[in-house]
Amino acid sequence: MSKERNTDEIYMSRCLELAQQGRGTVAPNPMVGAVIVYNGKIIGEGFHRQFGKPHAEVNAINSVRDKELLKQSTIYVSLEPCSHFGKTPPCCDLIIRCGIPHVVVGIIDPFAKVKGRGIEKMEAAGIDVKTGVLEKECENLNCRFMMFQKHHRPYIILKWAQSMDGYIGSIHCVGKSCQTPVCISNSLSHILVHKQRTEEAAILVGTNTALSDNPSLTVRSWSGKQPLRLVIDLQNRLPETLNVKDGSCPTIIFTEAECLSKTNLTYVRLNFKDNIIPQINDYLYENQIQSVVVEGGRQLLQSYIDQGMWDETHVYIGNKWLGNGVSAPKLSVSPVKSQRLDDDTMLIFQNQLHL
Amino acid sequence: MSKERNTDEIYMSRCLELAQQGRGTVAPNPMVGAVIVYNGKIIGEGFHRQFGKPHAEVNAINSVRDKELLKQSTIYVSLEPCSHFGKTPPCCDLIIRCGIPHVVVGIIDPFAKVKGRGIEKMEAAGIDVKTGVLEKECENLNCRFMMFQKHHRPYIILKWAQSMDGYIGSIHCVGKSCQTPVCISNSLSHILVHKQRTEEAAILVGTNTALSDNPSLTVRSWSGKQPLRLVIDLQNRLPETLNVKDGSCPTIIFTEAECLSKTNLTYVRLNFKDNIIPQINDYLYENQIQSVVVEGGRQLLQSYIDQGMWDETHVYIGNKWLGNGVSAPKLSVSPVKSQRLDDDTMLIFQNQLHL
Repeated sequence: MSKERNTDEIYMSRCLELAQQGRGTVAPNPMVGAVIVYNGKIIGEGFHRQFGKPHAEVNAINSVRDKELLKQSTIYVSLEPCSHFGKTPPCCDLIIRCGIPHVVVGIIDPFAKVKGRGIEKMEAAGIDVKTGVLEKECENLNCRFMMFQKHHRPYIILKWAQSMDGYIGSIHCVGKSCQTPVCISNSLSHILVHKQRTEEAAILVGTNTALSDNPSLTVRSWSGKQPLRLVIDLQNRLPETLNVKDGSCPTIIFTEAECLSKTNLTYVRLNFKDNIIPQINDYLYENQIQSVVVEGGRQLLQSYIDQGMWDETHVYIGNKWLGNGVSAPKLSVSPVKSQRLDDDTMLIFQNQLHL
Repeated sequence: MSKERNTDEIYMSRCLELAQQGRGTVAPNPMVGAVIVYNGKIIGEGFHRQFGKPHAEVNAINSVRDKELLKQSTIYVSLEPCSHFGKTPPCCDLIIRCGIPHVVVGIIDPFAKVKGRGIEKMEAAGIDVKTGVLEKECENLNCRFMMFQKHHRPYIILKWAQSMDGYIGSIHCVGKSCQTPVCISNSLSHILVHKQRTEEAAILVGTNTALSDNPSLTVRSWSGKQPLRLVIDLQNRLPETLNVKDGSCPTIIFTEAECLSKTNLTYVRLNFKDNIIPQINDYLYENQIQSVVVEGGRQLLQSYIDQGMWDETHVYIGNKWLGNGVSAPKLSVSPVKSQRLDDDTMLIFQNQLHL
């Protein structure tokens, strides 16, 4: 039985519900929801809808008809109100100006320019501020943003599909004979993979995968944002005819070679003598890419696993027996969630080290 | 669309339906069904019900009320009527005596004492005999019997359960610390495994499996015949306390050591310097054991696979992720059938070489 929630937690969970509606449209900002309560009744609600547009607190305050009531209300907000001028003016100033006497915060904003300053400012103005209500849930909601702010790297999701007998694909390109990639997962899984692409900032594949599967890494079976395409190509041996190099959307090629960038195709030089994963992380951090899905191949995925450099892993188990092929990466932890997708099963793993 | 069946095939498929009712009770005899048709109507039916009891033809003839009609009837029988005195008198003599003018046979009996002699005898008596109606189906129905008679070895079924990530169990007995075996498949699969045991003549496990899983290899979740238990124990190192040595039912231990057999526990010496699988086959052939389920472990199963010495393989894919453990055997063919068992999937493979 789950613990019974107190009043603060009930309003905070409403903030979380509201916040989620900004998924996929507010990044690299966090998703935030706010609720205004007067005399035991919700009189205003709001959430951050789109990057660059008003924050949750602004939308919640604007939704209150009788602004006089704010002077006797409590505002619940899932993330500490900001104290700095970004694309919009500081929310804590607005709360002070409106005379809201009580503020309940889910989690302190780890962003360097806020990080407790919003709370300090409101307390200095005489506001009663309570923090840490449903803190874990508020953190989980914005795990990408939190990871990025706290650890200065993107949130990393490993993803692959494997057959019932543990293969992620047939053996490609033995000598000069190449095989068409086998489709391991079903159409429902396929749709979910595309949905996920719209929710992450970037998608990464290794050289062998780009060559053998010739993926386009675009969003097709779902509607939403196209993530940045990332491809590793140490020696610049990927032909211009590959789908990932079609220039249809922004694409980064990590390479050691000297190459000329062109429209939608940027070459980023890495030092392949060193571990490339931290170098990729650094590049993504510097470029405000808060999350990345690593979609293969086996070698690249196993490197991420072996370095413990992942936050979630999504494995689609297809209803196919290949008999032989490329073995799936080895992951020695238990899944936290399992979901049937028609005749596929999707497993979600979490790296407990980073929680 | 399946081919439309002619009249002979329709009656023969009724024979097959009848025959199947003898599954599990007639071995080492084959399952046989017979139908008697007079003037386009079935006037008699029968099947072999139990080892040592009347054959299908006898039961079918006995079921006809007006025996005079037999003189203008056709008898359909899925297997050639026998020509020798076994536990019952020859069926072809009975057919001749009854004056049945037409006989339609599914498949010729490969048993050395029959093998066409039944047909010859009936034809010599002036009976019109047709053979080879639904021959493949008649052969498949008695694949155990057919394999045994034609290739002088039992029908071999490999069986294991593996996790979603391809392990058949956790790693047992590292040094002195042993782990409890993990249950990979669900309760529905468990029931089916026990049902299958009642349908096969013997069940075989290797030394490591006997030690680490301590299986009893008995039929518990289904009602039916207990198969002969077979255990490999080269150096006679299996303790007397193991379930397989409890003396509760006939058990064979294959060993190189000199051991004293006792009630329900027979030691059979093999030469472990040579390949033991043909030696086990020979022992089972000599002892009229027409089928064997090999239930593990990995090493033994892989030996059977590598030698191509199997007819069917049953793999239960459980809805579990183990993260590590003993890898499942590698089988490089495609399944011919897949069946959902709640959240497990059961795959059936056939060795096309022996078909």
